[in-house]
Amino acid sequence: MIFKYRFGNPIPTDTVVKESEVREDAVPFVTVLEGESISYEMADADIVYGLGENVRGINKRGWTYCSKCSDQPHHQEDTHSLYGAHNFLVVSGKETFGLFLDYSGVVSFDVGYTTKNGLVITPADWNFDLYILTGESVPAIVKEFRGMVGRSYIAPKWAFGYGQSRWSYMTADEVRQVVKKHRENDLPLDSVYLDIDYMERYKDFTLNEEAFPNFEDFVRELAEENIHLVPIIDAGVKKEDGYSVYEEGMEKGYFCTKEDGSPFVAAVWPGHAMFTDFLNSEAREWFGNQYAFLLDKGIDGFWNDMNEPAIFYTEDRLKEAFEKLDGFKGKNLAMEDFWALLDVTGSLSGNEEDYKTFYHEMNGQRIRHDKVHNLYGYNMTRAAGEAFERLSPDKRILMFSRASCIGMHRYGGIWQGDNKSWWSHLLMNLQMSPALNMCGFLYTGADLGGFGSNTTEELLLRWLAFGIFSPLMRNHAARDTRRQEIYEFEDIPAFRSILKLRYRLLPYLYSEYMKAALDNEMYFMPLAFAYPDDPRAARVEDQLLVGESLMIAPVYQPNAGGRYVYLPESMRMFRLKRDGSLESSILEAGDHYVEIPADEMIFFLRKGHLLPMAEGGNSVPEVDFENLTVFAYPDDGEVSYEYYHDDGVGKDYDNPENRAVITVSGDVRGYEVTV
Amino acid sequence: MIFKYRFGNPIPTDTVVKESEVREDAVPFVTVLEGESISYEMADADIVYGLGENVRGINKRGWTYCSKCSDQPHHQEDTHSLYGAHNFLVVSGKETFGLFLDYSGVVSFDVGYTTKNGLVITPADWNFDLYILTGESVPAIVKEFRGMVGRSYIAPKWAFGYGQSRWSYMTADEVRQVVKKHRENDLPLDSVYLDIDYMERYKDFTLNEEAFPNFEDFVRELAEENIHLVPIIDAGVKKEDGYSVYEEGMEKGYFCTKEDGSPFVAAVWPGHAMFTDFLNSEAREWFGNQYAFLLDKGIDGFWNDMNEPAIFYTEDRLKEAFEKLDGFKGKNLAMEDFWALLDVTGSLSGNEEDYKTFYHEMNGQRIRHDKVHNLYGYNMTRAAGEAFERLSPDKRILMFSRASCIGMHRYGGIWQGDNKSWWSHLLMNLQMSPALNMCGFLYTGADLGGFGSNTTEELLLRWLAFGIFSPLMRNHAARDTRRQEIYEFEDIPAFRSILKLRYRLLPYLYSEYMKAALDNEMYFMPLAFAYPDDPRAARVEDQLLVGESLMIAPVYQPNAGGRYVYLPESMRMFRLKRDGSLESSILEAGDHYVEIPADEMIFFLRKGHLLPMAEGGNSVPEVDFENLTVFAYPDDGEVSYEYYHDDGVGKDYDNPENRAVITVSGDVRGYEVTV
Repeated sequence: MIFKYRFGNPIPTDTVVKESEVREDAVPFVTVLEGESISYEMADADIVYGLGENVRGINKRGWTYCSKCSDQPHHQEDTHSLYGAHNFLVVSGKETFGLFLDYSGVVSFDVGYTTKNGLVITPADWNFDLYILTGESVPAIVKEFRGMVGRSYIAPKWAFGYGQSRWSYMTADEVRQVVKKHRENDLPLDSVYLDIDYMERYKDFTLNEEAFPNFEDFVRELAEENIHLVPIIDAGVKKEDGYSVYEEGMEKGYFCTKEDGSPFVAAVWPGHAMFTDFLNSEAREWFGNQYAFLLDKGIDGFWNDMNEPAIFYTEDRLKEAFEKLDGFKGKNLAMEDFWALLDVTGSLSGNEEDYKTFYHEMNGQRIRHDKVHNLYGYNMTRAAGEAFERLSPDKRILMFSRASCIGMHRYGGIWQGDNKSWWSHLLMNLQMSPALNMCGFLYTGADLGGFGSNTTEELLLRWLAFGIFSPLMRNHAARDTRRQEIYEFEDIPAFRSILKLRYRLLPYLYSEYMKAALDNEMYFMPLAFAYPDDPRAARVEDQLLVGESLMIAPVYQPNAGGRYVYLPESMRMFRLKRDGSLESSILEAGDHYVEIPADEMIFFLRKGHLLPMAEGGNSVPEVDFENLTVFAYPDDGEVSYEYYHDDGVGKDYDNPENRAVITVSGDVRGYEVTV
Repeated sequence: MIFKYRFGNPIPTDTVVKESEVREDAVPFVTVLEGESISYEMADADIVYGLGENVRGINKRGWTYCSKCSDQPHHQEDTHSLYGAHNFLVVSGKETFGLFLDYSGVVSFDVGYTTKNGLVITPADWNFDLYILTGESVPAIVKEFRGMVGRSYIAPKWAFGYGQSRWSYMTADEVRQVVKKHRENDLPLDSVYLDIDYMERYKDFTLNEEAFPNFEDFVRELAEENIHLVPIIDAGVKKEDGYSVYEEGMEKGYFCTKEDGSPFVAAVWPGHAMFTDFLNSEAREWFGNQYAFLLDKGIDGFWNDMNEPAIFYTEDRLKEAFEKLDGFKGKNLAMEDFWALLDVTGSLSGNEEDYKTFYHEMNGQRIRHDKVHNLYGYNMTRAAGEAFERLSPDKRILMFSRASCIGMHRYGGIWQGDNKSWWSHLLMNLQMSPALNMCGFLYTGADLGGFGSNTTEELLLRWLAFGIFSPLMRNHAARDTRRQEIYEFEDIPAFRSILKLRYRLLPYLYSEYMKAALDNEMYFMPLAFAYPDDPRAARVEDQLLVGESLMIAPVYQPNAGGRYVYLPESMRMFRLKRDGSLESSILEAGDHYVEIPADEMIFFLRKGHLLPMAEGGNSVPEVDFENLTVFAYPDDGEVSYEYYHDDGVGKDYDNPENRAVITVSGDVRGYEVTV
């Protein structure tokens, strides 16, 4: 059941698509101190799920999180905000309920940090809708919430293949080389990503013609090898006379303005840049139409970046900084002075004050940016998503974003931002994924191997062994880091067998993804969602369910020869050997230590479930989604699996013919059957 | 066996105290490419132990470490250098041997990072002694190494009590309050630390008379409550006319100089400061004598800080920085320019070039600092340690340092630097401890609860549950972080029972510490050191042996209700309840999941071993070290324990009367006996 309450005059976020009536009675469960906070006293054993893209565990207790879209490359235990603003959580325990704050501003969630059992939510101002959701279980509450905010974005099937990225592949020849090396080494690949350097001096919707000559031909050439090129689009539009996007946006008044009405300019990758007013529906439409520049050249996938929006500096603040710096000259700086000096330059980027100096035109109202900060990246991606419906009505386009807010999940996925080549970020990838699913973000994944810092072969192997279950499966690394393409490492056979398993699992993974999107279900689930009566399952922070049939338990520590796995019930364990063969055995319910060398991996098939698998291939089109081998761990009696299958391109999602039921009778026990 | 080889003309480090003959034959095990690297091809299963104070696991494989004493507050997975330079490692596996580089300069250790199995050691220049050590086991090799570098520093017994610290307790009254709150809450305490603000404007060997009036009386007042005040001493000496330490050091020429012979000045806490030339034995003696200023006031413990040495900035570089900054004025800065601008200020502190601009006078030779960088903190602490032998010949003085190098372990302990309130740093604390023991650093500990960032009650509880086993047990937090004294939290009874357990364990912990120091043994050991034939034990990265009788398995993850424990053999598990009672049970060898609520903790007594315990107390002098209860898990037959016990103050360490043997016959099985 959904309980909706309104405080003040909320700025419309367009997050909720299913209307509920505003209630006037007391808000259930929580204590509302109007103008101050919304709070709840948790029991010791309560678990708090949700909050989407944030650091720390599946259970969010023990820290303070702040919904404020931030260009934050340091994903540390003490980080409060990442790129997304995801104000949905579920308290599970003494009382079980969901809570969603439909709000465009900054909000903090103290989840048992200040006091052990205090959950305290503090919005920056009191203009928002508060939703309380109840249901018979945590997944039921999530499903209710997901129904309220609308169907999640559906990616084309090819985007479930493996993608290789780097900041940046600088030329067409470098891209060709990446493809060639994968193909030569018998490593599957479906996409190569273009980071900022493919553009002409970081200008959106332009091409560096020298580095990427005859782009349309190049896109076609790659398409013939089943490779999709996926260019990046940045939020900032370069301020440069003669650059048509800039000139047209200026002429039409589609960029954000300062208080005095003059254009707001801030520096990002291209230097001085303009910020499209994505909250203005006309500007949104205009920006969305720009994607045609690349769609027309055969591009069918994009990633939107820098749309928190990131600001490196504003001219005003830089000027002020230079004045302040002059004040330090010639002094014997004691520590306080010295820190103050460092802070002058250190606070240039992402400065909160800058976000208070520009304005949007939204439904005829002029609104200061900080009031709607969390809607910015959302509406950039919405601009693209709405445009794709117009420009490509019959063909899905890949779209994922860095910044996000719930609501944006209908227009695109997200990647988990600029992580690092840290083992702890592999675990964070796992822990964040179900929280994102709760908030509607199904097409997600982290930069496998880690974006910043230098990876190691073992880390990349282990990360891929988790990443093959992620809808978005992309290896991405930053400039000046160690090369991270698989063929740069020693044990290519071990990588190959893991990558090929992804392609063998695709029928199942894609089917589960589609059902999760269409039926408002979870794709990645904490164990407790499926085993609510098992108190041990509730504490498991390093295993996940993937769809209805699989459980995974990745290795996320260096130099480990294996790991502990907790089984709430008996499961069939599969072991992938380095030669690509799969072995399996039945493990009883309970605790197990499983040896897992770095060149092997394991996963589990749940009792009473089926796993359809394909022969695999080196790209998605090579995978035969129709002739399947079904692995079974049937309970007593017969067991069936609802298999979703479509062409992966069109949008006839709800056609009942896309769903088939595979049934296996109960006399097979841990063996495969071909259907 | 010790194999010593000499390359070039090494600068004497005084690290090795037991001479070996220089050999001329080929270096065993490793490949030496003179002028380039020392390398070894590891087997897949080889484990590399050692390297002292570094990030990452007990097994150092999979990263590159650099011995270069660094003021590095970011202890991340991708950090290469912390505060210490500890060039000793042991390869265990296909071949087992120790390797030590006796060298004063920077050296990098690539331990299976660039290639999976390559161990590559690269010194900055080729003037060093290389030692290869062999023995019948890893602990035997460590013991041989420890014998070669001399007996570890021995702290006074009171320094095994709990210490409370903060940057900074600003007044005597604030210190009194800290003591009072502990005593009122029945929380044991033996020391309070004074961070930099107790001094008069950060001048070493001065007192802020306003904040700490009648200091001598204050020290005495606290001593009556069994509280020791432990002031900090910084490496930099404030440049200020009229300040006697500065003036005398200048007059005598005891400070480091620039190439032209003029004094080298760099800014640290007090602003412009001088750097005592600790490598000059006269200057070392002079600086050591300064500690008398505080010893004479009743102080009997110190911590040496900022002695990498940290440099905030040099005047020359700051001037250059301002010039560079001027060059950016008025420009439209594209990204590269902008990063360059940020780098101007970002590279002011700890700039490598600055370390090449000053000189030492060492044995009549003028040596540029970067050649002997890693000896600086070592010799600051040596200055203190040598002075204490002169000034306090009969009474031990507490001394621990931030920067260190092997050799310094004879003069003081170290704390594990400016860590953060991160769960991962609790695990790092555990993993680093045996590596430090290998290098001779026995009196060590991390800032419990974390120094930087904000702690949580659960993190502090779990960290203390590990920290009670650490010789140095100190709760320390940075300025501007959440108050971290135990009484600031909700569940004081849970903290109390953990803290009191420390005092009940003191007879054992102190005895094990003393035996480790006197017999060149490990205090904290990886499981593999004691169970070398157990391949599972070799991979355990989150359990340690503490002395000969105990094994610990701390909880180091948030919101965990328990953890997995691996037992190489049957052990007696003790569970501390929140009321302070101990329950125990026998666990069989193998894997166990153990429930451990945050207000409880567990530890294990090994089979065939004894655990002597005292009644406890709220300070070390209150603990009765003579009337003990001995817990036993006897194997068949009788079992004995060598109990080391002395007054904890004097230096008659080798008196055979300090060692008694406790014997329990085999008919008790998991029960206590009073001896």
